[in-house]
Amino acid sequence: MNTNFNLVKTNPEGSARAGELITAHGIVPTPVFLPVGTQATVKTLTPDEIRELGFKMILSNTYHLYLRPGIEILRKMGGLHRFMRWDGAILTDSGGYQVFSLSPLRKIDDSGVTFRSHIDGSAHFLTPELAVEYQEIIGSDVAMVLDECTPTGNNHENVLAAMRRTHAWAERCLKVHKRTDQVLFAIAQGGIFPELRRESAAYLASLDFPGYAIGGLCLGESKEVMLEMVSETLSALPPDKARYLMGVGSPEDIVEGVARGVDIFDCALPTRVARNGALFTWQGRRNIKNSVFSDMEAPIEPACDCYTCRNFSAAYLHHLFVAEELLAYRLATIHNLAFISSLMKKIRDSILDGTFASFRKNFLETYEPTNEETRINQKQKWLRAREIE
Amino acid sequence: MNTNFNLVKTNPEGSARAGELITAHGIVPTPVFLPVGTQATVKTLTPDEIRELGFKMILSNTYHLYLRPGIEILRKMGGLHRFMRWDGAILTDSGGYQVFSLSPLRKIDDSGVTFRSHIDGSAHFLTPELAVEYQEIIGSDVAMVLDECTPTGNNHENVLAAMRRTHAWAERCLKVHKRTDQVLFAIAQGGIFPELRRESAAYLASLDFPGYAIGGLCLGESKEVMLEMVSETLSALPPDKARYLMGVGSPEDIVEGVARGVDIFDCALPTRVARNGALFTWQGRRNIKNSVFSDMEAPIEPACDCYTCRNFSAAYLHHLFVAEELLAYRLATIHNLAFISSLMKKIRDSILDGTFASFRKNFLETYEPTNEETRINQKQKWLRAREIE
Repeated sequence: MNTNFNLVKTNPEGSARAGELITAHGIVPTPVFLPVGTQATVKTLTPDEIRELGFKMILSNTYHLYLRPGIEILRKMGGLHRFMRWDGAILTDSGGYQVFSLSPLRKIDDSGVTFRSHIDGSAHFLTPELAVEYQEIIGSDVAMVLDECTPTGNNHENVLAAMRRTHAWAERCLKVHKRTDQVLFAIAQGGIFPELRRESAAYLASLDFPGYAIGGLCLGESKEVMLEMVSETLSALPPDKARYLMGVGSPEDIVEGVARGVDIFDCALPTRVARNGALFTWQGRRNIKNSVFSDMEAPIEPACDCYTCRNFSAAYLHHLFVAEELLAYRLATIHNLAFISSLMKKIRDSILDGTFASFRKNFLETYEPTNEETRINQKQKWLRAREIE
Repeated sequence: MNTNFNLVKTNPEGSARAGELITAHGIVPTPVFLPVGTQATVKTLTPDEIRELGFKMILSNTYHLYLRPGIEILRKMGGLHRFMRWDGAILTDSGGYQVFSLSPLRKIDDSGVTFRSHIDGSAHFLTPELAVEYQEIIGSDVAMVLDECTPTGNNHENVLAAMRRTHAWAERCLKVHKRTDQVLFAIAQGGIFPELRRESAAYLASLDFPGYAIGGLCLGESKEVMLEMVSETLSALPPDKARYLMGVGSPEDIVEGVARGVDIFDCALPTRVARNGALFTWQGRRNIKNSVFSDMEAPIEPACDCYTCRNFSAAYLHHLFVAEELLAYRLATIHNLAFISSLMKKIRDSILDGTFASFRKNFLETYEPTNEETRINQKQKWLRAREIE
């Protein structure tokens, strides 16, 4: 399979790199962040707005699309691009992570995974071969192999077994994948065990996939451990292939991931926290529902030139959130994605002109990350809630 | 006070009329429908979208704005136009109807009305003079007098008393109204008693307001009675002043209201039913959640050229509604408002070229109104729910 990634420049002082991902729906400059369109829509926005925000590629989820609208509808409608009217690139996750995080009951063996729909409890069976078939019907530009995730805190034996199964499934996916206008990325696992992370990356690298993802992170481990696992994985991946850190996308994590050599990020965080009223500024997140914003005539981030900040005061956004008006979620989503889009542009420009190291330093000095405890607790609470459901 | 209404043409075969409402924020061709922006936003849409849909005037509610964001915030922000970034015209209702329909407990005497906030139960006092003062701070182009609504089914004695109080309050409002870039409309009441409707219109006409509204309708009475009350009221209003039928706005009611001589309509119905998945077509409303739409490649109304119909299949809209995606509510709102905008243009064009009678006949032959029982039951259920709250 031909490579679908051009490495344009590597930062002389470290591992950060600028590149281009070549897809059937256009060239995507990297490092890139993919807005999450789980259910065939980036929540609250039209495809035109996503494009205007500067994004050329989005993520969608095979698991959700399989349940709703269903693979047959997508086949009839001519695939996901046409269905949701998005002519940019699409990467689809295979469903492995969603089965792990969303399905109330699941049973995994070597053949595949039996899971229950988080919507109506109906039982379904997913195999590596079916995951590829569904993604070929969906017609995404980048498909992902089916993998087995393990929760943080799982013991070495379980993580090792899940990793080996992930490797076997990756081979089966590669064997049945046929679509030539779609590439298939492998997913490295290995939990929080450095030697397993290296083993997983090395094994998958030997199979010569066109791109590699780092899976199973941001599941409750500390930020330090997460970044260590990224480095361990990347150390065993070929530098000429695209590297994708799955489910990671806070501004500080993106900058640190890029510094270690990640090319692709996706995360529901910027859009999800937007709908909760947490808006990015270059100094950190701000909660627009806080009463200090009730009479602020300036936009939430005066240095931002997004549609929301060009047009509306912080006071108006505050009012919309307090009144629970639907326009609030949309204006906040536009702002947070514009912020991430701008961040990615600054990152890439600084790599290209050799100033990424100082950009990173300045960014981390001024941007105050949201309290990590809060972050981890929220994620764990969410995962627990899904378990109980 | 100068008139703010130019009568351009009256239909030779009946009472339908085309005109122009002159406001401080532009000329508004009539008959006109005002999208409802209760809380300083037409739900789900930006001001740019409202303008692109062809609307030059919207409605907002003093009652809601008084509670949130509050009159002091609006004063600080330079009025409602600036706060919500809408440079078209705005009409504000006074709060009379909302106190009647939304406040769980209220006490009315000649001095004014004590009511409880539907949000937090706090007690507030509203007088005719305060209603004018608040609307002057809000800065709407058309303000409404404070009136007293009576529920359908109330006896003659109570309706008469409320009507007389409404008249006295109208005089008090007129006396204190100062803003010269804002006009004040009176509201005729009279319940479902023809002679009271005529008396109310005639009395208010004698006070020489720049425009007149017909209030207290669409509250559970049948469509026939509603239209009869409209005719009775209009028979006693001066033809050279604007006439506004409050809270009425289904497609069939608009056509029938125009036929009787109404110039201005407002109603939450087109936007509210849109969020429930009921989309207008020239044959009547369609429920997009119905499974017949799950694989329909065509838009919901092929004859519609709105953003939603130009870009998205009925199948995609169906999916968004089933998946409860926020984009659903926005795309549906755009469609329903585009439909009403198009309806108003067809109505006005047909009045101008003398073909309104045949337009009306054709429209009513092809457009199947939503079952009236359902309509009335829904409204009564809603009003009862508010009473209990």
